[in-house]
Amino acid sequence: MKIKSTNFGVCIDSFRAYGIKEGKYGVAIICNDVLCEAAAVFTKSSIKGAHIKADKRRLSGGIQALIVNSGNANAYVKDGYRDAEKICEIAAKILDLDKEKVGLASTGITGRRIDVEKIKAIAEKVKRKLTNSPEGSIKAAEAIMTTDRVPKQLSFEYKGIKVGAIAKGSGMIAPNMATMLCFITTNAAIPREKLQKTLKESVEDTLNMLVVDGDTSPNDTVLLLSNKRKECRIEDFKRILMHLLEEMAKKLAKDGEGATKLIEVEVTKAKNKMKAKKIAKAIVSSPLVKSAIAGENPNWGRIIAAASSKEKIELKKIDLRYESELGTAEVLNKGDFRPLDKAEKVLKGKEIRITLSLNEGKYSATAWGCDLTEEYVKINAEYN
Amino acid sequence: MKIKSTNFGVCIDSFRAYGIKEGKYGVAIICNDVLCEAAAVFTKSSIKGAHIKADKRRLSGGIQALIVNSGNANAYVKDGYRDAEKICEIAAKILDLDKEKVGLASTGITGRRIDVEKIKAIAEKVKRKLTNSPEGSIKAAEAIMTTDRVPKQLSFEYKGIKVGAIAKGSGMIAPNMATMLCFITTNAAIPREKLQKTLKESVEDTLNMLVVDGDTSPNDTVLLLSNKRKECRIEDFKRILMHLLEEMAKKLAKDGEGATKLIEVEVTKAKNKMKAKKIAKAIVSSPLVKSAIAGENPNWGRIIAAASSKEKIELKKIDLRYESELGTAEVLNKGDFRPLDKAEKVLKGKEIRITLSLNEGKYSATAWGCDLTEEYVKINAEYN
Repeated sequence: MKIKSTNFGVCIDSFRAYGIKEGKYGVAIICNDVLCEAAAVFTKSSIKGAHIKADKRRLSGGIQALIVNSGNANAYVKDGYRDAEKICEIAAKILDLDKEKVGLASTGITGRRIDVEKIKAIAEKVKRKLTNSPEGSIKAAEAIMTTDRVPKQLSFEYKGIKVGAIAKGSGMIAPNMATMLCFITTNAAIPREKLQKTLKESVEDTLNMLVVDGDTSPNDTVLLLSNKRKECRIEDFKRILMHLLEEMAKKLAKDGEGATKLIEVEVTKAKNKMKAKKIAKAIVSSPLVKSAIAGENPNWGRIIAAASSKEKIELKKIDLRYESELGTAEVLNKGDFRPLDKAEKVLKGKEIRITLSLNEGKYSATAWGCDLTEEYVKINAEYN
Repeated sequence: MKIKSTNFGVCIDSFRAYGIKEGKYGVAIICNDVLCEAAAVFTKSSIKGAHIKADKRRLSGGIQALIVNSGNANAYVKDGYRDAEKICEIAAKILDLDKEKVGLASTGITGRRIDVEKIKAIAEKVKRKLTNSPEGSIKAAEAIMTTDRVPKQLSFEYKGIKVGAIAKGSGMIAPNMATMLCFITTNAAIPREKLQKTLKESVEDTLNMLVVDGDTSPNDTVLLLSNKRKECRIEDFKRILMHLLEEMAKKLAKDGEGATKLIEVEVTKAKNKMKAKKIAKAIVSSPLVKSAIAGENPNWGRIIAAASSKEKIELKKIDLRYESELGTAEVLNKGDFRPLDKAEKVLKGKEIRITLSLNEGKYSATAWGCDLTEEYVKINAEYN
């Protein structure tokens, strides 16, 4: 049985959503008629955005609605937590729910007091538009965008299990899910601890292998809600969840700030999984590799430099190739290099895949990122 | 007694040097009439440029002359080591020395066979121009440049101890001295083991705290030669060496690829030295901090994000300020933020100093870097 793509986004099954952007602020709401089991993964930064403390308190009791705002991250501000609780309270009142059942996430500029009244005003309008149709998910995805160029949503169905998600990127994305917010809805009836464990493991190999610029944000959040209407096997749920998160990682990478190309790096035949992951991440994070790809320049020495700076590798064992929608070009074969004319053509593609075989073991890992362009610098010099 | 700046560069005391650039290749020679004590620090990459193996063999026996080429890094090439030894042999013949007494360094593109004959032809011309005058050092510094915009040389005198150096940057500079070559000459009579220890320790707090783009090169080399003519105390030698390396780190940072501003980050009052170093490096490495500085944008949240992504810090204890030749602006005082109008003015300066006090201990560390501009991307998309 194949995983089937659908167009509901987070509005799968009985979930409703909507979002509105007004000036710098945007507000999205995702909710259900029943209390949902909740699981989450947050940033590893030691100073976290205020919404994370508010959410952590609520996870074990279940969550029925999420309010998400863009425009202000509510981070590095002393009264942040008080404001976060106030936003939950406002949303609860609007939705006629217990405030302990409403989760929150914020993204945007840090170090500035969040405008609670502005969020309240937009949230009231959003409430009136909440819908179970796919449009609700798209509007929610649009409302949480910051420097994103396109809204990101996905949904899949497999053996009756439905999983949907919206997410926002797009700079400050690295090792541990920088300013990345991803909200997932599902009908899979999985007990809380197992739901949490499955989410954490799945994020580890997908969203946590995504690097835009190596910066980590205080607000990274992946939050999953399940209405538990569909009994299923955990393996089946994990399969569809992993698929969704991998596709979402690619979407986020493609829309990295200033990006013109998706870069997928697969390290194969490594001695162990951790080594494969470290090297894949090192390559996809290297500003020199990223700018070479932007310039369609097959400077493979930079790939080897990035790989060998973190881990011990042997040049004489290495195979390296570039692939894209324009073909495949072998660059290194057991450390011997090949003419680069084919590689130059392949790199003109939009989705670049770099495969580095260490030929020393049986473990693989994949990381995703994007090219580094002048546009990235322009966006981040000016972002205010 | 103060450390005095001189203009000899590596041509201090009895050292001679010269360099010539012809097309893509440049060759510099630094030499002495006597066999010198040698010490060195190399890249930590697991695949190293071929010259490093050649040098390592020679260090304990002393080195009388160094030949350095730009244009080709002689890295990631199977016959690289054989070519490296050939270049030493050629230089030895030209200089009428034992080939075991000639050291080597290479910088430039990786993954291409080095042109030994081209280097020989240039080296013969360089030999005829070798001089003890300051001009020789400048010419040598110019010949080893790759994407550097200005040649880098320094020399100092203190209690009769002379230390001089030339260096080249300027991209791929990070945690462990990426494509950075630095050659130091001195008259300090220090036994070999102590010379090596002093060099290693000094590099650790200076050149290894320099980050241009976070990429590490296979060829990083700091090589020091001493003609041992001046008896001195190790502490005095370390003082002048540290001073020289710190000034050189700043020169290299200022000339980072595409850089328009020097960034100096000092982390103070940390619980321990390692924590102070890690945080200073994290801040100076952050693409978001670097692009904010390029845009003269006092987005201090990015500084806190970079700092808190690596280590546990407490916002309510933190003081943060920007300084430049245009003044000082306090941004955070025990976690409370201040208006940013002053900071906006300060950031228009060319030498930006960020001071972050953790107020939890007594240890400090400084790191150097530069802003991230569109020019960096342009240079690295096209470099071939």
